[in-house]
Amino acid sequence: MQDMTTEPTLKPGQLLARGVMRSLAAHGFACVEELVPASGLRVDVMALGKKGEIWIVECKSSRADFTSDGKWEGYLDWCDRFFWAVDSEFPTEILPEGHGLIVGDAYDAEILRMGPEAKLAPARRKVMVQKFATCAARRLQALRDPTGLLGS
Amino acid sequence: MQDMTTEPTLKPGQLLARGVMRSLAAHGFACVEELVPASGLRVDVMALGKKGEIWIVECKSSRADFTSDGKWEGYLDWCDRFFWAVDSEFPTEILPEGHGLIVGDAYDAEILRMGPEAKLAPARRKVMVQKFATCAARRLQALRDPTGLLGS
Repeated sequence: MQDMTTEPTLKPGQLLARGVMRSLAAHGFACVEELVPASGLRVDVMALGKKGEIWIVECKSSRADFTSDGKWEGYLDWCDRFFWAVDSEFPTEILPEGHGLIVGDAYDAEILRMGPEAKLAPARRKVMVQKFATCAARRLQALRDPTGLLGS
Repeated sequence: MQDMTTEPTLKPGQLLARGVMRSLAAHGFACVEELVPASGLRVDVMALGKKGEIWIVECKSSRADFTSDGKWEGYLDWCDRFFWAVDSEFPTEILPEGHGLIVGDAYDAEILRMGPEAKLAPARRKVMVQKFATCAARRLQALRDPTGLLGS
């Protein structure tokens, strides 16, 4: 089903992130886009599982989108599993080996390969869940009560 | 500033919750409305502080709204501090003593009395932050991508 209300404003990577989030939601994960785990880093999708497991998904809409990313290795320290998400046209052979792979589009996605697990230390997991919670709640409040943020 | 886009659909207690959330956001808290800490319980506002502290605020728009609530004592076990929130016309003398008090309206609110601290056990805090995170992210996704929840 086409969603004409939101598509024109989303870039290719964001459309792919949307499909990824639909799929991860169906797997029981809650997701937030463009979360900042540490200064200078911004992950495309952070997903939180029912047992507190944290996945990071980097969405690459094209070869250029991937080759211009010099920060992705910094994301590995902030999750239990790391995934690349690409569309079906993407040349997956250029992706670094040893991580998860998700293939999708704006509407859905499929996990083709699980990322290996590298469990976060409890203190860092606690920080990440707190960041996730705060980010999601602030954005939700901003959408539901936009006037409130301007002062009343 | 009047917010004509959302007000007509909100009930008195929800308008009060909106003012409470604006105020708590200004105090650095992230908030979620109508969170379910355990089966059969639904708190009006759950607020998460920067250090992971959890406050619950029950919003009472009238005497009848308060006297019909037989569940509030069950909320005490799920937060570090508990507050009543009422408007300036509310007969505060009917509220049980020993909890925090917030007075506000649809636009803002003020903490008149801090609730005493009864610190959550670490395991329960972890559960609550996880619930808060999941609830906020799912609602955010539902607002940003309503089509996604219907299937694509």
